[in-house]
Formats: sequence, structure tokens, C-alpha cells
Amino acid sequence: MRGILYGVGLGPGDPDLITIKSSRLISEARVIAYPSLSGGESFARSIAANLITSGVEEIVMDVPMSVERGPAQAAYDVGAKRIEAALLGGNNVVYLCEGDPFFYGSFMYIYARLVENYQVEVVPGVTSITACAARAGKPLAARNERLTVLPGPLSTNELRVRIEGAESVAIMKVGRHMNKIRSVISDLGLTAQAMYIERASLPDELVCNLENAPEKAPYFSMIIITKGADPWL
Amino acid sequence: MRGILYGVGLGPGDPDLITIKSSRLISEARVIAYPSLSGGESFARSIAANLITSGVEEIVMDVPMSVERGPAQAAYDVGAKRIEAALLGGNNVVYLCEGDPFFYGSFMYIYARLVENYQVEVVPGVTSITACAARAGKPLAARNERLTVLPGPLSTNELRVRIEGAESVAIMKVGRHMNKIRSVISDLGLTAQAMYIERASLPDELVCNLENAPEKAPYFSMIIITKGADPWL
Repeated sequence: MRGILYGVGLGPGDPDLITIKSSRLISEARVIAYPSLSGGESFARSIAANLITSGVEEIVMDVPMSVERGPAQAAYDVGAKRIEAALLGGNNVVYLCEGDPFFYGSFMYIYARLVENYQVEVVPGVTSITACAARAGKPLAARNERLTVLPGPLSTNELRVRIEGAESVAIMKVGRHMNKIRSVISDLGLTAQAMYIERASLPDELVCNLENAPEKAPYFSMIIITKGADPWL
Repeated sequence: MRGILYGVGLGPGDPDLITIKSSRLISEARVIAYPSLSGGESFARSIAANLITSGVEEIVMDVPMSVERGPAQAAYDVGAKRIEAALLGGNNVVYLCEGDPFFYGSFMYIYARLVENYQVEVVPGVTSITACAARAGKPLAARNERLTVLPGPLSTNELRVRIEGAESVAIMKVGRHMNKIRSVISDLGLTAQAMYIERASLPDELVCNLENAPEKAPYFSMIIITKGADPWL
């Protein structure tokens, strides 16, 4: 009997925002897997830490930080082989994923490698966009409003075009793209409607208007622009 | 001492997709509030049913189904007054919201009425978009990909323009707009990349290619189009 691969979303960071289902799967797991970034601590593992039982086998994918895709893909290749071995041995494997597995999650790389030959179940999680909106007190979309999600690394022109034609906008992965994004938003006259959120739901969370945001943003940071939402109408 | 108003996201429908935090708040609540549609059963309440303790005060907002906003807003006005009375009496109130409170959630209407004068905390939930992507086995966005969320009631032209310029697209609230949406997607040559999901994560869930989707869709249905995501690259 082959094991089942579970890709579980852990939400934005507060362990209380893990779902009951993900929580149970992690507590019962005998094999877990997760990525770590360039040998650093794994954010995904830190969210789930209190649920992981002792003696569990941990498959760690050490993903190098690099603009080239090759080295990261090689790390997922190796990780997928180890996960495959556990599944063939009859063990379920629970892959830990911050946020949601199919929303900018690293689980997609493992999923693509194993879904053809193994049973895989994806357990959705709370995404950072709704967590950030909650913490900023800004409704994202009501009634017939549209929402556009953009990654911060997009080019200045692409960001400008996409933000200009949008209603509510969530810009993910601000990080080192802060200055570029800030000036696009300023050029469009939208700074007053923009909020900055970093490490939403964690103890060191920061929420402020974009104009008061720090010069340097961590990878897990977001800007939300709410242009039209008026829940009174 | 005034009570605190909690707007809690319940996720897409499977009670196991409620977060630990929302679960605890509901179990401990002495006053809960939720909408019901035209006197029907409340979907939000049904998701949380097993967590609601007996003897709890239930504030029900019976929201009429109507294109006009007036009657619905009047129902939220009355509900907000009752919630206010409970808060002034020193009770916390837990408002139940399917999905996420700030993502097309009815909690926005209560939030707008009470946030000025009361302490409000929004607890994010799993949205239907990532739940549908999980069930359809379709990653929504990787790396620098964009995601566009569109409500089904938008006009044919608006849908066409927004889908054409997008990468991944999630179309919410398909319902009675099924035929219109289907023909826009067909005209754009995207039918083969479109999946239809109704009542994601519930026992009577339906997941299929758009071409096999039924003529009639319920309100809680979605179409996702994934044009570009390739997690191998």
C-alpha cells in the first residue's frame, strides 16, 4: 500500500490560523516535508512546530536563494525523490506550506513531480492576502468588485498597467521591490489608499499606511490598495 | 466593559477547514450572529453547527434576495443594532461568515456600521478560491504570475476584457450567469483550460472541466482558468 501525499496550507504565520484538518494531519504524521531557504530556519516548520510529534522523519529541501531556477529545481528534485521513497514504503507524507499550497506555495513544485503516480490531497489554508486585509481593517472586495493579485517582482510598467486598471489590489512579496512599487503607486496618485503589512498575524507584525512604511521590507510583506470598496452602498 | 465583535471566517464549507482560532471563538461564544438568505437556512451557521453550544443567543439577519440594495441594507441595520446591544451589555459577539469576512463576505456590512465605536477583530478564513483550486488540482499562481478574481455578475464586455488580459482567473458566484460566462470563455478559446467547481469541500461537491459543467449552477460555484502556471520552470 502506497502512502498519500498531503500538501497542507498553514496560513499566514499565527499557529491559531491553521485549520482543524491541517492540524490533525500534522499531529498524526510520521513523515513531514518542508523547504528551508538557503539553510535558514523553515518558516513553514516554525508555524507548525507545536503540532509536530517527536520521532517524526523530516524531509528538508534546502532551496538556494537565486534568480536562476536551476538550483531550486534541483533541490525539489531531490526532495521529491525522498518523498517518493516514503510513499512507496507505505507512509503518508505531510508537506508543510505557509499560506496556501496552490497560492505562490512551494508545494506546487512537488505536486507537479508526483501527482501523476501518487495519490495527492491538497488542504487549502488561509492566504496572506485575506490575513493582511483583516489586520489592516480593509475589506478586499464586496458585491461585484474585482481583486487583482500581483507579485512585487513584476516590472515597473507591468505593475503600473495592472494597478491602473484594477479596483482592489494586493501586491505580494514586496521585499526588495519596495521602492519601485512605492513610486508606481505614488505616480498613480494612490498612496493614500495603500496600506503596508509585514509578517501579518505574527508577534512582530507591522501594519501602517504606505506613506509610513519602512524603506526596507522583508520578503513576507504586502501592500494592499482598496480603491472602490464601499460596503454601505 | 463593552464586548468585542469578532468577524470569523469559516472557510468554504467543510467544518474541518475552520481555523483553530475561529473554532475556539465559536465554542466559547455566548452570542453569535449570522445572515440567512430570504428565510432559508444559513450556510454560515451550518458550517459552524457542531461548534455552537446550546443556550447561545443567536442574532439572525434575514437578508432578502433582491437586486436593489435597500432591503438588504435595512436587514443589516437591524442586525447591527442588536449586535450593538449585546456589545453594550458586555458580551462578545461572534459573527459567522462563510469563506473569509473581507472577501465578498457579509461581515463587511456589519463592520462598516460598528468599527467606529466598538472593538472589532477580523479572523481570516480559507477562501473559496484556494479551496476550489485545491479540489480541481490546479495551482493558481506561482512565482511572478498574476491572479485576477472576478465576480460572475460583471457584464459580458467587462468579463471579456478582464479575462483576456489576465493569467490565472477565478470567477466567483457563477450561479445564473453560467451561460454568459461560458460563452465569453469559449470566444476567447480558453474552455480547455477552465474548470468548474461547485460547493467545494462539501459532501455534494462537483468538480469537472467547464465543457462538462451543468447548465444550471448554484450561487456557490466557481470557474477557474489557469493559463500560464507551469511549476516545473
